[in-house]
Order: sequence, then structure tokens, then C-alpha cells
Amino acid sequence: MCRWLAYSGTPIRLEELLYNTEHSLIDQSMHSRLGVETTNGDGFGVGWYPLDGPAEPALLHGVGPAWSDANLREIARSTVSPLFLAHIRASTGTAVQQTNCHPFRYENWLWQHNGSIHEFAKLKRDLILAVDPELYPHIAGSTDSEVMFYLALTFGLRDRPVTAVERMAGLVESVGRAHGVPNPLQMTVATTDGDKLWCFRYSSEGHSRSLFYSTAISALHKLYPDDKRLARLSDETRLVVSEPLGELEGAWQPVPESSYGVIQKGEDELGHFEPAVP
Amino acid sequence: MCRWLAYSGTPIRLEELLYNTEHSLIDQSMHSRLGVETTNGDGFGVGWYPLDGPAEPALLHGVGPAWSDANLREIARSTVSPLFLAHIRASTGTAVQQTNCHPFRYENWLWQHNGSIHEFAKLKRDLILAVDPELYPHIAGSTDSEVMFYLALTFGLRDRPVTAVERMAGLVESVGRAHGVPNPLQMTVATTDGDKLWCFRYSSEGHSRSLFYSTAISALHKLYPDDKRLARLSDETRLVVSEPLGELEGAWQPVPESSYGVIQKGEDELGHFEPAVP
Amino acid sequence: MCRWLAYSGTPIRLEELLYNTEHSLIDQSMHSRLGVETTNGDGFGVGWYPLDGPAEPALLHGVGPAWSDANLREIARSTVSPLFLAHIRASTGTAVQQTNCHPFRYENWLWQHNGSIHEFAKLKRDLILAVDPELYPHIAGSTDSEVMFYLALTFGLRDRPVTAVERMAGLVESVGRAHGVPNPLQMTVATTDGDKLWCFRYSSEGHSRSLFYSTAISALHKLYPDDKRLARLSDETRLVVSEPLGELEGAWQPVPESSYGVIQKGEDELGHFEPAVP
Amino acid sequence: MCRWLAYSGTPIRLEELLYNTEHSLIDQSMHSRLGVETTNGDGFGVGWYPLDGPAEPALLHGVGPAWSDANLREIARSTVSPLFLAHIRASTGTAVQQTNCHPFRYENWLWQHNGSIHEFAKLKRDLILAVDPELYPHIAGSTDSEVMFYLALTFGLRDRPVTAVERMAGLVESVGRAHGVPNPLQMTVATTDGDKLWCFRYSSEGHSRSLFYSTAISALHKLYPDDKRLARLSDETRLVVSEPLGELEGAWQPVPESSYGVIQKGEDELGHFEPAVP
Repeated sequence: MCRWLAYSGTPIRLEELLYNTEHSLIDQSMHSRLGVETTNGDGFGVGWYPLDGPAEPALLHGVGPAWSDANLREIARSTVSPLFLAHIRASTGTAVQQTNCHPFRYENWLWQHNGSIHEFAKLKRDLILAVDPELYPHIAGSTDSEVMFYLALTFGLRDRPVTAVERMAGLVESVGRAHGVPNPLQMTVATTDGDKLWCFRYSSEGHSRSLFYSTAISALHKLYPDDKRLARLSDETRLVVSEPLGELEGAWQPVPESSYGVIQKGEDELGHFEPAVP
Repeated sequence: MCRWLAYSGTPIRLEELLYNTEHSLIDQSMHSRLGVETTNGDGFGVGWYPLDGPAEPALLHGVGPAWSDANLREIARSTVSPLFLAHIRASTGTAVQQTNCHPFRYENWLWQHNGSIHEFAKLKRDLILAVDPELYPHIAGSTDSEVMFYLALTFGLRDRPVTAVERMAGLVESVGRAHGVPNPLQMTVATTDGDKLWCFRYSSEGHSRSLFYSTAISALHKLYPDDKRLARLSDETRLVVSEPLGELEGAWQPVPESSYGVIQKGEDELGHFEPAVP
Repeated sequence: MCRWLAYSGTPIRLEELLYNTEHSLIDQSMHSRLGVETTNGDGFGVGWYPLDGPAEPALLHGVGPAWSDANLREIARSTVSPLFLAHIRASTGTAVQQTNCHPFRYENWLWQHNGSIHEFAKLKRDLILAVDPELYPHIAGSTDSEVMFYLALTFGLRDRPVTAVERMAGLVESVGRAHGVPNPLQMTVATTDGDKLWCFRYSSEGHSRSLFYSTAISALHKLYPDDKRLARLSDETRLVVSEPLGELEGAWQPVPESSYGVIQKGEDELGHFEPAVP
Repeated sequence: MCRWLAYSGTPIRLEELLYNTEHSLIDQSMHSRLGVETTNGDGFGVGWYPLDGPAEPALLHGVGPAWSDANLREIARSTVSPLFLAHIRASTGTAVQQTNCHPFRYENWLWQHNGSIHEFAKLKRDLILAVDPELYPHIAGSTDSEVMFYLALTFGLRDRPVTAVERMAGLVESVGRAHGVPNPLQMTVATTDGDKLWCFRYSSEGHSRSLFYSTAISALHKLYPDDKRLARLSDETRLVVSEPLGELEGAWQPVPESSYGVIQKGEDELGHFEPAVP
């Protein structure tokens, strides 16, 4: 499968989280601890909202392993962003190519996924047919993850994100049932419009890929009053990750099964996720 | 657009035609004379039937320009084949990635294309819907060319190739009409099952990309009794190319507009091509 | 050979010069007008000093053609810089790989080159031997251009740039003479420490690759009082290019043969370039 | 480090050993058991002598992981060879690029290496200086392994291979001593001229990377009279590997520390390896 990370908060140099932590995402590309595979070497991607840039986020996608990519290291070292997604891929069969790298982008939206649609080849045609014909030409790659994104867009991601993702999940499960595919959906997803960040953890079988969110920074400031890295982060800062970036006691909370979270100004939200036939 | 070459006849080292002719395909990748673009640097591919190999042809696909690819040079130098297709790509917009490189393969069949479906983004969904659902999951890339291949397979390529390609063309034109796209199809195509080779030249507007076939070797032997390269080639040998590989007087014949040719044991065929609504 | 561009002045989004001009560098990658080859498709690179970043410049290097590179387009769209170099490569024989892409970097310095050392294979060993053994391990690629950079560093680039480059040129010519290679050096070079920018035009034969610098912005403001793009640029802004980015009358001046220029705060300099045996 | 395989004997389809064994080289690229790293994803290479081809071997080099490379799979499936080397790389720091992929080739010779020269950056200049100036321009990449090859060529690889490799090792150790680098050499090497195959296992510290050779086929035929795969292999067939390709009892023998083997027509040889100052 894959590993990912989503950050929102105090503008930060990307390398701080991609390289300079104990068990950074780059470290996970070769030595994942909680993933299905220890190696996530089938391409990578970062999508970030530039500090002073256009509303549309920027993307860097690579087809080699993240651990040896010189461009990723350069961009991570030179880019500061208040909101970004990063992903390392372990292909479940589809080609290793830039158009299959996460995060995917549509206008100001980004989307990344860990997991899979089981027997996707069997279900793909019916899922594709459900994509809004106006959106269909924008699908550039061949992954299940990108189809999930365009289904969510079709079902209203831009207006009511949680409902749209629930309808996407409901469709995948209903198409799966129709084709006799048990437990068709396995997913952790992060998506953002450049302002809020939504994260989802769900699987048809009720045994989803790992996902963690960072403890409220205000609480961490109290726990670790002398930690200089933490001191720089505002109370609004939040990180969601496939696996913890380090062993800091109390810093990480598991996202519950079948739930979603909204990272936003003011109070964040955590809710129950329930697929709904669209 | 692109440039391609198709060879059938006396087993030959690939480099003879890809590199060692006056205006070889590799030369055309940087200096095409008759193409829409002089540069065809958006990837390349070769598909060949090994002399002693499995019935399924082998493929080499690359995303860089053919002119600088070390692997292509190695394979061309070390491989002998009686039947192969080679293609250099100039993208009309879709991504430069291996799954978009020609020739495409399905079982023992190969397919390559120069040209385009105009406003493909607008027509793609309807065309995809017409592909046999059993074949649909085999589409790996995002080009118009690969969709044309799967439509032809859907319409019986394996049984009646000319009819199947005519029905594919008929469908593209009918879908184009329905969406108000004038002259939707522009194509030269080569396809083979490992035994016979079919070539097509057609465009909706009646002004198709260039295509040439080599004069019968028996005639060339008479014209050039002392040419050592020609001497090695059997009477069954035939070459079809987007543009002539050299200036040898009398060696190349233009394929007529709206026609197809069949290269096969015994007499080759040349016929009129007529799109037919499937 | 290659084409390059060097910019210093009002912070600008990279895409303005790489994509959004009449005859942009990306356009030159496929349709160079003044280059030895019309195609410069053997990789590319950009090196820029981030607005708010570390003193060390950032690099993006790619091995495919610039015209189809998605990452280059993204970085160009999202990056603003007051000082950057950009380069598109046409290999003169060495491998197409990231370590051969310009600009090259050493600490806070960047270096890019168009041209070649003739019969470099013959001269390379003697040139390499002249590189400071402390610097030698930093040579990562196999080009003549990178060796020229490390020779210039050896001869004092960081202290007296013009003298150092003159000594580098002198060494190349003296080694060339010793091996019977006539007119061994052909170069236009741009190098910068993040503050000033030095450009050089020289060839042993006195017939150097083209190089142009932009007319003083103050003069252009007078010539074109209504040009909005020009209006945004400060009087300190200067551009040096292998070939003009557009047809704007009066905007471009050829750099004279055997000369160098220094772009800096206050008055720029233009001087005579004279190789000197080191 | 890396993993490699060398085969000599009955012509065999490459995929038999690269893909179709229990713990194939491709499997080792993601799940090495005996290597320093479990992942060998920094490029790969195969060099083979074509059955009917030119004396010079053919090469396929890739910069992505072997496990996902479509071209490697195609070539492995379609190529039959009586003698080939295959290598998967885990970089010890030098760039991931084709010119750093093993096996390296010089005329009819191939060379591949697992291990490293410790603190190579420090020793490289002195080692490079010892390479025959006629050979020096052929060095295309930046690895220690390729320098070792050119040193061995300099010291007579083509005439007396074992002596040449012993002198190369002696030089590396003597240059290491001069720079205060303890135990500078760690290596298993395979090299061939297209006829014989030489393999070496040595390290300055006397604790070398793993290396195994296959038990004599005649003995395996007796042990496993019903094994169809073994039945096809002639008595002259021999395989040397970084780690066993499967669990077949009695099939694999460790190469002793500080030794070399020669695979050749008639009796193979096994001897003591002793570095010698050149």
C-alpha cells in the first residue's frame, strides 16, 4: 500500500517533516513499520499551497523511490508551506508513472489515499461510468485512488466533503456487491481545498490501515515546555500520518475506525463515517 | 504527431533499420521531414517477435527521446527479428509515460498509430463505453491510440482485421458527429498478429499523414543488382514507413489515401478503406 | 549545444521567463533559432535563490525534455525568485543524467555553460588533475562543463571570479595545445554567488555561441512607457540569454566576443576577457 | 550494498533465474535476506551474450527498482543466453543513474560488484590516477565499482584476470593505508570475457559479503533425478549468487573467504585470493 502525511498549521519548511524527524516519511519509504509492505518505493508526491503563491497548490511527482530523489530533497529544503500533503507509494499493480502519483489535484483541491479498491479491474468500468462526464476527461492516470477522487468530486466534494466521500464509499461497496467482491474498500484519505483539511479512515471489513493525528499542540506545549521544535508551532497546527514520525510519548492519537476528522480554524472535528449509497 | 516503421521479411538486426540507414527512424526522432513536428521526442517503443521466442511479442518502451536512449541502442544491436514495429512519439497532449508508448500489445497482437482523434477529451467517454467490458480493464494508458486498438479488438480485429478497423473508424466518426467535432479521425496504423501485417492510411478530412511502402524486393533486386543490403532480403520482405528511410530512387511508394495493405506470405494486398458504423 | 538564461532583479515568478514569453526558454527547447541544434531535449535545470530560503540555492534537474516536464511547470508556476539560472541541454556526447544537468552548484555558487571543450575525452585526465584535490570529490557528473566549474573554483572563483575563469580558459587552451587539439574552448557561461552575476562569452576560435543581455530597464521604460510587464521591473533588473526571448525592438544587445559582464547593484560592468595560463 | 547473479551453461531464458525461482533476484530487490539492506531498489542491470549475436555483450540498465520495471520483464522473457550477469543496486551514496548501473562493459568484458571502497571520496583521485590514460576516458559513471573495473583492466584483466584483480585490490589497500582508511575494500565481483567467468570474494577485514556457487549439476542430477528444471541443465552449468535462489537442500555452497573461482569448460577452479601491490 502506501504511507502519507498531511500538515496544516504554522508555515514550516517541508524537509522538517519529510526528512528531519526520527521516523520521517522518507525513512518510511524504505522502512515502514506499520504498513502492509516495508518498502514504499513506487513513486512519491508532495502537494503544497505556496505561502505567496496562486490559490492552486503546486505538485512534485516522482516515479523513483523517494529516498534517492534529488529533486524532492531540493524542494523540501527550499519550500515553506502552511498546508501540504505528502505521499509515498507502494503500487498494488497499476503502473509506476507520474499520473499515478498522489496527491491528485483538481482546481484548488488535493487528494491522497492509502489502501485500495479490491479487484479494481473488475469494478473499474462501472465506477468510471458514475463519474460526472464533465469531470471524466480530467482523469489522467489509472489508479483506483484517482477514480475515488473523481467520484467524490462528482458527489459534491466541493460543497459537502464528508457526505461526498460517504457517497463515494457507498458506491464502491454497492458496485462491489453487484460484482461479488467482498469488502471492496480499504482507505485512509486526506483531502483539502487549501483552507480546511479532511481525513478519513474506513474499510468495508472494519479493519482499516493505520492512521494517527497529532495531539493538540497546546497540550504538547504543556507536556514538553522545553521542546524548541514544538515551541515554534501554533495551537492551530495539526499533523495526520499513516504512522507516527517519532516516539514522542503522548504526541500521537489513533484515528478511530470508521471515522473522519476536520482540521480547521477553531475547534477541529471528529465524526463517525458511514458509507451511503449515492 | 509521430513516426513509425513496420517490417516483415528476412530476419534482420533491428539496428539496421532503426539506426543504420540514411534517414533512419532515430534520425527522424530529431529531424522528421514529413511530420507535423520535426521533433518526435516524447518516448518511443519497439515490439518484436523473437526468432526463437514465445508467440507473444516483446516490447521495449522508453519515455525519453529515442535518440539518446542507451537501452534502445543495446536491444537494437542485439536483437534479430523477422517481424517488428517501431514508433517514436510526439505527444498531442497526453502524458509522456510508458503506458502511452506504442506499440500497444494484446496477447499476440501489436498496434501502433500516427495521428489523433480530434478533441479526444470530449469524445473519450463515449468511445470507452463502446469497448467490450471484458477488454476494458486491459487499457493501461490514456491515449486515443490505445482506445482505437481496443475498439478494433472489440469489433473483431482478431477475426476480420480490415472490417474491425473500418468499424472502429466508423464509430469514431459517428461519435465525433454527435459531439459536433468535424473530421475527428486522422490515422496511419500498423497492426499484426505475428504472422500477417495490416497497414491503414485514412483521415476523415481525406488528407492523411504520410505513409509509404517499399517496392517489391524482386523489382529492387533488378534495379540494384549490386546492392549488398538488398541482396540479403528475401522477396517476401516488406517495409512500411511514415517517411522514406533514404533517397533510393524507386524504392518507396506512397500508400494511397483511404486504403489498407496486407503484408503476407504470397501476394500482398492493397484495398480501399471505408469506415462503417459498427 | 545548449541554451540558457540568467535573471537578476525584481523578484519574478519563474514561469514568466521560462514559459510566458514569445520565444521562451521552453520554446527554445524544441525550436531554437540561433543554436547549433534546433532541439535541446537532453535534460534541463533551474537553480534559484529562494526569497525567504537558505543562502544555498535550490536546484531542479530533469533528464527528459523541458517541454514535457510536469515538475518544471509546477515549480516555475509556484516559485518567485530575485536571481535564477535556467538551462536546457543538447548533449555533445556525455550521458543524459541528472548529474550532467546544469546549473551545477557548489556551496552558494551556481554555474551553467553552453559550448564545449573539443575532444574532451582526450583532455579530460589532464584537466581533472588540475582540480584542487579537496574539490575533486565534489565532481558528480561527467561533463566538460562541470570540470570547467571546478577548475574555476580551483583558480579562485570565490575571490576573483573573472581572473579565475580566465585562468580556467587558459588552462584548457594550454592542455589543448599540448594534445594537438586546435581551438579547444567554446563557451558562454553564467555564474553567481547569490549576489552578483557574472557572464562570459569566449571561444578559442573567436567565433563564440550567441549571447545577449537586456537593455537597461530605465531605457526600456522610456521606449515602452505602456508595457505593463516592463513597468513591474526595477532599474536593477537584467537578463542574459543565449537567444532573445522575443522580438521587442531595442530590448536586446549582443554580448561582444571575448568579453565578460558583471550584473550587480549599481552600475553593471562589461570588460574584455583574456585567457591566462594559471 | 547490492545483490548479483552470474550464470554460465545451458542457454536459458533470463526470466527463469531473474523471476521464476523461489527467492529470485527480483524478489531479493525488495526482500534481501543476507544483504546489508533488505531493499536493493537503486537501479539494476543485466548483461548477456546473445546466442546468435555479436561478441560484445548486450546491456539493459534501469534506474528504477527492478521489481517494477516493465522493460526488464520483457527482455527477461524474450532473451535466451548461455552466459549472463545480473545486478540489483543499493547505492552507498553515488547517484542513481544508468552510468552507475552494473554490469559495466569494456569491449567483450563485463564486470559487476557488491561491496564498496570505504571512504571512496577520499581515495578516488589517487585511484583514478592509476588508471591507464588510454582507458580513463571510458569511465562513464561515478562509482567505486567502475573504477575497480578500470584498475583491473589497467593491471592486465584481459591477460591474467586473477592477478589483475589481486593487483587492483592491492592498490586499493595501499591507497587506503596512505590515507588512513582502515579496511578499505569489501567486494564480491563477477567478471567475464564471454567465455570464462571469474568470481571473487574478498574484504580487507576478512569478513566479506555473502557469495554462493551452485553444486555441480552432475551431483544435483543424482540428488534430484526427477527435477525437470535441473534435467535441462548440462553438467557445465554453474550459477554464482549473492544469496541462494531457493531452499533446495545441497544445491548451494558458500564461496570461501579470500578466494576466487573460475567457471570454464572442463574442470572449474577455486583458489586463494591474495591482494598484491601492483
